[in-house]
Amino acid sequence: MADAPGTGDVADWWRTSIIEMEPGVIRLRGRPIEDLIGSVTLPQMIWLMLRGDLPTAPQAGLLEAALVAAVDHGPQAPSIAAARMAVTCGLPLNNAMASAVNMLGDVHGGAGEQAVELYHAIDAAGGPGAAAGEIDRWQSERDRFVPGFGHRFHKPRDPRAPRLLSLVDAAAEEGTVTGRFAAIARTVEAELERRKGRPVPMNIDGATAVIFAELGFAPPLARGLFCLSRSVGILAHAWEQMGQGGRNKGPTPPAYRWTYDP
Amino acid sequence: MADAPGTGDVADWWRTSIIEMEPGVIRLRGRPIEDLIGSVTLPQMIWLMLRGDLPTAPQAGLLEAALVAAVDHGPQAPSIAAARMAVTCGLPLNNAMASAVNMLGDVHGGAGEQAVELYHAIDAAGGPGAAAGEIDRWQSERDRFVPGFGHRFHKPRDPRAPRLLSLVDAAAEEGTVTGRFAAIARTVEAELERRKGRPVPMNIDGATAVIFAELGFAPPLARGLFCLSRSVGILAHAWEQMGQGGRNKGPTPPAYRWTYDP
Amino acid sequence: MADAPGTGDVADWWRTSIIEMEPGVIRLRGRPIEDLIGSVTLPQMIWLMLRGDLPTAPQAGLLEAALVAAVDHGPQAPSIAAARMAVTCGLPLNNAMASAVNMLGDVHGGAGEQAVELYHAIDAAGGPGAAAGEIDRWQSERDRFVPGFGHRFHKPRDPRAPRLLSLVDAAAEEGTVTGRFAAIARTVEAELERRKGRPVPMNIDGATAVIFAELGFAPPLARGLFCLSRSVGILAHAWEQMGQGGRNKGPTPPAYRWTYDP
Amino acid sequence: MADAPGTGDVADWWRTSIIEMEPGVIRLRGRPIEDLIGSVTLPQMIWLMLRGDLPTAPQAGLLEAALVAAVDHGPQAPSIAAARMAVTCGLPLNNAMASAVNMLGDVHGGAGEQAVELYHAIDAAGGPGAAAGEIDRWQSERDRFVPGFGHRFHKPRDPRAPRLLSLVDAAAEEGTVTGRFAAIARTVEAELERRKGRPVPMNIDGATAVIFAELGFAPPLARGLFCLSRSVGILAHAWEQMGQGGRNKGPTPPAYRWTYDP
Repeated sequence: MADAPGTGDVADWWRTSIIEMEPGVIRLRGRPIEDLIGSVTLPQMIWLMLRGDLPTAPQAGLLEAALVAAVDHGPQAPSIAAARMAVTCGLPLNNAMASAVNMLGDVHGGAGEQAVELYHAIDAAGGPGAAAGEIDRWQSERDRFVPGFGHRFHKPRDPRAPRLLSLVDAAAEEGTVTGRFAAIARTVEAELERRKGRPVPMNIDGATAVIFAELGFAPPLARGLFCLSRSVGILAHAWEQMGQGGRNKGPTPPAYRWTYDP
Repeated sequence: MADAPGTGDVADWWRTSIIEMEPGVIRLRGRPIEDLIGSVTLPQMIWLMLRGDLPTAPQAGLLEAALVAAVDHGPQAPSIAAARMAVTCGLPLNNAMASAVNMLGDVHGGAGEQAVELYHAIDAAGGPGAAAGEIDRWQSERDRFVPGFGHRFHKPRDPRAPRLLSLVDAAAEEGTVTGRFAAIARTVEAELERRKGRPVPMNIDGATAVIFAELGFAPPLARGLFCLSRSVGILAHAWEQMGQGGRNKGPTPPAYRWTYDP
Repeated sequence: MADAPGTGDVADWWRTSIIEMEPGVIRLRGRPIEDLIGSVTLPQMIWLMLRGDLPTAPQAGLLEAALVAAVDHGPQAPSIAAARMAVTCGLPLNNAMASAVNMLGDVHGGAGEQAVELYHAIDAAGGPGAAAGEIDRWQSERDRFVPGFGHRFHKPRDPRAPRLLSLVDAAAEEGTVTGRFAAIARTVEAELERRKGRPVPMNIDGATAVIFAELGFAPPLARGLFCLSRSVGILAHAWEQMGQGGRNKGPTPPAYRWTYDP
Repeated sequence: MADAPGTGDVADWWRTSIIEMEPGVIRLRGRPIEDLIGSVTLPQMIWLMLRGDLPTAPQAGLLEAALVAAVDHGPQAPSIAAARMAVTCGLPLNNAMASAVNMLGDVHGGAGEQAVELYHAIDAAGGPGAAAGEIDRWQSERDRFVPGFGHRFHKPRDPRAPRLLSLVDAAAEEGTVTGRFAAIARTVEAELERRKGRPVPMNIDGATAVIFAELGFAPPLARGLFCLSRSVGILAHAWEQMGQGGRNKGPTPPAYRWTYDP
């Protein structure tokens, strides 16, 4: 029967451990949805969906702090700008949000993922003492930019990072996390300052990466969680633009002319 | 100067009330980001970004319940399927999520928005007593499908709706919300059963629409908030697929042949 | 068997008349692909795929002119800007192109579709003599903007429209098309000038809509064909940006600050 | 002035050599648009936009053959399936096309780009004689899949490749191209057959990559040009689905259940 036109044995083509459905029944990671609604927080639900178990309240609180911290960094970011432009092109919110999230690629949304990878590499190489060597390796094999440190706009420092690190420190004291990725990140920060002769402070990506690494999220999920978080700001800006109106609003005002290079 | 090639007075081309930035400073809706991190929940942050003020804890709890309820409805939904297929095409998580959220159009992601519109119309026409007339108007002017009611898969009923409505009832008793949109929705449900001669129970869109309407969100935000919520499930499925591997995985197994209509 | 978990009778779920495949065999609209390669032009192939038959050479030539005309309108358009920003976010060309094409919504990419609808409405109401009435109806029921006429940048006129119309005229003389939609569009142009007291000349959307209507394409395909055409410019700009480099390039230069409205 | 809030010297932020616009004037690569419309073919226009000069007729013909060849490979491909699903979610054609093109990532749309890279590497290493060594290097450093060869569906061979190669041969005889990338590709094909003990014939990606390499397109443009070509099939399938109707059509029929792995 598998060879008959228009039919086929489709068993096992798609498999999932996330959701189980029958008529009238939805179980997420084995738990009936009606037991979760009103009982778990949104960050707990995010954790459950991604990992299969429920986090403790302190774990969920740390994840929540990272998600709250990254919701927006203003309309100068290509993603937020794209969402606003999309609305003026007549797109509804879902398409505007998609246009924006699509922009969170290796350069815009991937720094957190890369920072977790760097922290993991330092950890695997023995911890903070291996930071200098792993920074060298990163710059020679991957990119001259060390992900998660420095900010072209926020001088002297990104205001989100110290606050996030203080929450990690508190969680480490309480035993929620070990604190070893915070130590690694601070060593990277110190090493970069030593090399540059000026501070290259941890930024939002470097700080949320500490949290994601402390909580045991795999590197690609740092990007995924950032996408969830930034989607909040994207939605807010798209909605604000919808209220302002505008039609086919280009990035720059009409008086501006792009430079033509013959 | 505005007319010189390559320059232009760009003041006021883009305006926002959401975020204010200076080097070292980020304020969201007037609040320093470091005061929000670790202090507000993610649903509170969502509300703040969209509306400019912070909700009370009970308001945020009701919003949180709606966001938790809608995270996933399985990979048979085109959005989730798209996320999984995208991963097998080699896309990283941000592009997979965008591909999926893009799918949440008028038919897939717009039912909640439409349900809020219907409830508003009934409310504006005088409340539950106006439900039958507004259903008639909806079906003659908009669509024969009454948004938010009935489910082709969940018989006898969508398990999420009763749980959400019970939370609305509790919130109404405590004075968090008025409960008038819950009453409207129940009247719609009863009227549809009367007309069809069988239950056409409220579904997830109809129930979350009650919450969004009770909390004062504009109709398009019902779609936007659904996109935020479903992004959680989308991310989880994309990540699971990444772990499973697969290359260029089509919707149906290779043995299946699409029917060719000459 | 249809009810067994993980299986199902999938016959007829997806059906197509476009393509027929067997191992070693690809037929498009019934024609072996190897007979088409090197034998038909790209516009002929586009027509064949959309409509099932091959156009005559003059028909294909007129379609080709419309596709050539609309490839680019500069990086001030949100779509082109999105493609360039996407590249600086680290996206490869496919994702950059998708981000841009997504922007071609009702306002940005839908004017051609709407213009075909307007021409059809005038034609159905009796032809050019019905233009004034149908313009009134459009403005009262749809939008105060009459699609396809006027241009905020190109004064006195969009240079593409007269050239395209002259090709339609030549094709009408040769009997390739009837020319009745060209007559309708010119009547709309004259009527708008009469009402405004100044020229409101046909723009690219109004002119390509004449071609699409003359050739018998349904209104939504005017948007679809525009997306194909503009994809050329989108690709060119994305590729140029890739050569220029840049990281996370926002819409406006860093010195520019978005206006904050407290 | 550059530091005043809301303003900024925006000169040179965006630069392009593709298009020059003034009111009433559009020049693409220095040529007035009205001189191009009706005078150049769509493939010539694509070449002009990407490279700045016009191709000869034989060069354009070879490019056209590649673009015609790759328009569609059926709805089992994730991209085409996504376009059709998108339409059933209520998306208009531009969003459906974007959803599909977005899927053409490293695995689905990147094989042609990778094949050009492989051919370039062999060419740089001395030509066909270097094929075996470069295949080894590719498999050890990049991927065990050699891009552009073999097909899981088309046995014994992809019908598009031989036809395309015969066109390259003819063009080489006429002096349009050198034919050295065709020789390289055939050596790869022979080497893979020698290693596997069975044919691993060139597929559509391997064959169009020969054409793109012969014509001097950079590797990423192989992906970009494939996106343009496949957009034709994507549009056709989206449009066909629009005619068929369907609401929220999942990848597999409702009777099918995804396998739940507890």
